Amino acid sequence: MALKILVFGSGSIGTVYAYILSRVVSPENIVCVCRSNYQAGRKNGFRIDSSIFGRGLTLKPQVVETVEQSAAFGPYDYVLVSTKAISTSPSYPSLLRAVVTQPTTTIVLLQNGIDTESEYASMYPNNPLLSCAVYLPVTQVSPAVFVHQDLEKLHVGTYPANAPQEHKEAAGEFVRLIAKGGGSAVLHDDIQLERWTKLLGNATWNPVCALTRSRDVQFLRSSGHAREYVRSVMYEISSVAQAAGYKTVSQQMGDMHIRNIEAKDLPGNEPSMLADALSGRRMEVDALLGNLLARADRHGVQTPLLRGLYAQIAALDESFGRRSGSKI
Amino acid sequence: MALKILVFGSGSIGTVYAYILSRVVSPENIVCVCRSNYQAGRKNGFRIDSSIFGRGLTLKPQVVETVEQSAAFGPYDYVLVSTKAISTSPSYPSLLRAVVTQPTTTIVLLQNGIDTESEYASMYPNNPLLSCAVYLPVTQVSPAVFVHQDLEKLHVGTYPANAPQEHKEAAGEFVRLIAKGGGSAVLHDDIQLERWTKLLGNATWNPVCALTRSRDVQFLRSSGHAREYVRSVMYEISSVAQAAGYKTVSQQMGDMHIRNIEAKDLPGNEPSMLADALSGRRMEVDALLGNLLARADRHGVQTPLLRGLYAQIAALDESFGRRSGSKI
Repeated sequence: MALKILVFGSGSIGTVYAYILSRVVSPENIVCVCRSNYQAGRKNGFRIDSSIFGRGLTLKPQVVETVEQSAAFGPYDYVLVSTKAISTSPSYPSLLRAVVTQPTTTIVLLQNGIDTESEYASMYPNNPLLSCAVYLPVTQVSPAVFVHQDLEKLHVGTYPANAPQEHKEAAGEFVRLIAKGGGSAVLHDDIQLERWTKLLGNATWNPVCALTRSRDVQFLRSSGHAREYVRSVMYEISSVAQAAGYKTVSQQMGDMHIRNIEAKDLPGNEPSMLADALSGRRMEVDALLGNLLARADRHGVQTPLLRGLYAQIAALDESFGRRSGSKI
Repeated sequence: MALKILVFGSGSIGTVYAYILSRVVSPENIVCVCRSNYQAGRKNGFRIDSSIFGRGLTLKPQVVETVEQSAAFGPYDYVLVSTKAISTSPSYPSLLRAVVTQPTTTIVLLQNGIDTESEYASMYPNNPLLSCAVYLPVTQVSPAVFVHQDLEKLHVGTYPANAPQEHKEAAGEFVRLIAKGGGSAVLHDDIQLERWTKLLGNATWNPVCALTRSRDVQFLRSSGHAREYVRSVMYEISSVAQAAGYKTVSQQMGDMHIRNIEAKDLPGNEPSMLADALSGRRMEVDALLGNLLARADRHGVQTPLLRGLYAQIAALDESFGRRSGSKI
């Protein structure tokens, strides 16, 4: 029987992976849940200009506005969660009740941060749950129109790492499916190392760039204190990672990361949280920083700079809430 | 002979003190240098609604656009510098060459921060130079229209503290002049203690509120980490103050300061740097934080949070420079 795929959240990440999957699964079997780009996506489909996959690509999946509407197109083999990792009411995991209708439905979390999986795991304990680390620089330049540049790498593994054998197999199948579509997916026995590795840069640049309205290279060159500040924040993150058992997430890795960015030209990369801040949209505060601080507490690691950064970004996020009401 | 007064910078502080002085000095002998509110000030004069001095107050001084233009109205007895304390080219001290034309011209710095006096002192070594700490909550609600609330207190002293006797006398005369106009001025033998005392709150709330687009009470209530972050920043400032010899600027003073703000209702106070940030205007980064870090270095005081805050606010300030060109 033909595979059916739900993409919950048709922003940059969700749309590009929907496109990759559309090369092996018929687009009428791909259902995209849209919010802000619903009208554009429904009318014209999605358009992607990619330096890897090609210019002027189009994708015309089923486009719906809510998870409830998507249930009519199921049952689903894969539910890709590519919304922002923020708290909502009702929560995203609970919204998926309508579409995670059989034990073989594989839930794939294409999201930032750490420790974001547990609510999905406890609500759907029998379903394969895949956690990912995504490297995919994409910008939505107008509703349902995306520009993707130079890098596409998807790290995949089960949550938890010691999941049952059939969940491990589901992870392998998903990786093969992405590869068939032309994507670059890598299977990991413990995906958390990849999540922590990504967090090292992510939990630094996202809040720093959002608060300062600067891209990464712009920030590094803005004053004589910028580099040392970034380095010190990364040091705290790596200290928590080490305490959590991810020994390769080291200060050395942070220094290499900074050197890579220093070598780039102005203006540099725009982290997603900066894009959100410039638009006054809510940000992934807890997925990136709150959960990290909780881990620091659990392991007794001192993180004064991260605590400050959390206080600042939480306040900035709340200021957007004041301006936009309950907009997500 | 009638006194002549130049007010360089007719924002909130400059205009309210011009009004106070206009009660003892004829308005035609008061010259205001305006920038953004030049047209409004020239056409209609200034309007102030004050909970202390009265509603619907008007002031019609001489209004000019540049220091050069003001020279024609001199010579001056007092030059009040009430511009923002930011670096410009040419520098503000050098612009005053045209109006500090006699050795009795008293220069009065009505500005935030610490260690902002030295360029004035070295350019005009023989003139009385008064440094101040101003407590005056005023908002310019439209060009040349101001709302002032509840508090007016001006602390005055010579720079340096051990200035010649005639400079000390000039400080006393200025304080008496303000008092005659109905203001509350206090003469200090060492004004720097007042500058550091003000800095404790100022160097904390200004950057934190500007970065997070939150007022002080809003920030304190935004997350469980906010209070401790503010407390830790104040602790670093007080450590530098103590090392610089200002022993009363203590963590205890910081804690009292925080308790006062906690007792206030939402939304709380809008520091001037937040007002600047919301308008995309350049900010007093070095007067408030850069000079503080230089002092920390001189005294060997560790200030990791202040270093981070400096890196952040300098980058935010630079982002406004990118957006507005060379606007001051």
